[in-house]
Amino acid sequence: MTEETPSKRPRSSKDVPYELIYWPGLPGRGEFIRLVLEEAGAAYTDTAQLPDGGGAASVLPYIQGALPPASDPSNTPLFAPPILKHGDDLVLNQTPNILLYLGLRHGLVPGLHNDPDAQFRVNALALTALDGLCNEPHDCHHPIATGLYYEDQKAESQRRAEDFVKERLPKFLGYFERVLGSAASGKEDTPWLYGGELSYADLVLFQCIDGVKFMFPKAMAKLDREGKCTRVLALYEAVKERPRIKAYLGSERRQKYSNGIYRYYEELDLEG
Amino acid sequence: MTEETPSKRPRSSKDVPYELIYWPGLPGRGEFIRLVLEEAGAAYTDTAQLPDGGGAASVLPYIQGALPPASDPSNTPLFAPPILKHGDDLVLNQTPNILLYLGLRHGLVPGLHNDPDAQFRVNALALTALDGLCNEPHDCHHPIATGLYYEDQKAESQRRAEDFVKERLPKFLGYFERVLGSAASGKEDTPWLYGGELSYADLVLFQCIDGVKFMFPKAMAKLDREGKCTRVLALYEAVKERPRIKAYLGSERRQKYSNGIYRYYEELDLEG
Repeated sequence: MTEETPSKRPRSSKDVPYELIYWPGLPGRGEFIRLVLEEAGAAYTDTAQLPDGGGAASVLPYIQGALPPASDPSNTPLFAPPILKHGDDLVLNQTPNILLYLGLRHGLVPGLHNDPDAQFRVNALALTALDGLCNEPHDCHHPIATGLYYEDQKAESQRRAEDFVKERLPKFLGYFERVLGSAASGKEDTPWLYGGELSYADLVLFQCIDGVKFMFPKAMAKLDREGKCTRVLALYEAVKERPRIKAYLGSERRQKYSNGIYRYYEELDLEG
Repeated sequence: MTEETPSKRPRSSKDVPYELIYWPGLPGRGEFIRLVLEEAGAAYTDTAQLPDGGGAASVLPYIQGALPPASDPSNTPLFAPPILKHGDDLVLNQTPNILLYLGLRHGLVPGLHNDPDAQFRVNALALTALDGLCNEPHDCHHPIATGLYYEDQKAESQRRAEDFVKERLPKFLGYFERVLGSAASGKEDTPWLYGGELSYADLVLFQCIDGVKFMFPKAMAKLDREGKCTRVLALYEAVKERPRIKAYLGSERRQKYSNGIYRYYEELDLEG
């Protein structure tokens, strides 16, 4: 803030812990945010950790209209979780948006100090991973309506999953293989997507691959055997070995998959 | 660039026209980019305007692997159009990513000079409009596979469109009505989503509404009669009256809807 903008009240310090507001009981889209917070070593609270399903009660006020009273009136109403609250100033939603905010703040956009456009390259990678390897897997069990049960759209799910493992999954993995083999990804001996250093897009792709391996183990095993995702799987293993990520994955904070985005249904576990 | 970063070569000037690289023959996702460029009064070329379908030949090299040789090696391979090229330095894809890049450059993020977080609020609004009122309408005619014809997924499309007009469309419109009624949208007599001034999210919402009105005229008419989208439609009309947008919409550069995201199928034109 400068003296030239007296109309806007001083903003509170951002040196406060983050609050992640998300449904309890499943990793969901909240998991992409958690991985970035964990890798950054950031202090945060997580409504998913509240006892007795209290997390749901934390989410609802945000998406049912009214924002909590402490919020800056510049904050718009929110559509859906994950939601990130940071101090009294900022309440954000939209997964790729929160990821960009955190990535810029926590040094997870390689090369940004030399090239401010780096953020748009990393943002595009994260958006593409979320489109193809999070939203599309979700639609494999909910191709008709998010408001219906899977059991009410099983036949359509079967068709969609067949197309996903045969066409879409190889296409998206092939894209990330090309990215990982490109000059933009850095030297050959670094496993990361951009600039030879870990970016938040790597964490997003890690979580996508983890979920897809859980949901479609046969298809992923086949693509691995065929050498179609060698670099992507090397990135996946490299993320797992990051000390803070490794500690997180071994902790109770890491939730098991259940009825969220990535689900295991035997009839959808196709080889492709 | 500063002297402290000699390893990176000097970047070329950004005072060059933009190039929009997109499929010819349909407005598609390219249209969101065009509206921002038009409102900004930016100089740009558009492969959709190339004669004899030459636009398709312009798109393919970008998404089939190799980037054109003039590009900065920091650019990653691209997944899909729309693609924005800016000078020799930058080639970007992902619609919301290009929109953010342009919005920041062209003063289409209200209040940014006072509050750098404004960009994340506007980005979230644009992402939510694209999710609910662009991607979901697309999936109403392609719920199973983008690689199949509509005719091969008609029954599933019928179910998906029924859910969309009944559940999803009112939900997303209701959300934007709440945003438009919030303090964050500015004074009551301004029609915009954020900060009392036009943002690129307004242009995104305009195009979404234009497409949804084309695809689902009965549902939109009903929601209008019921007063469920009064503020959204006021925003829609206000965007239409922006001088540069008005000139653009009246020009031959504005393409007609065809076999793209927003399509008219009588059997999907449900009232909800």
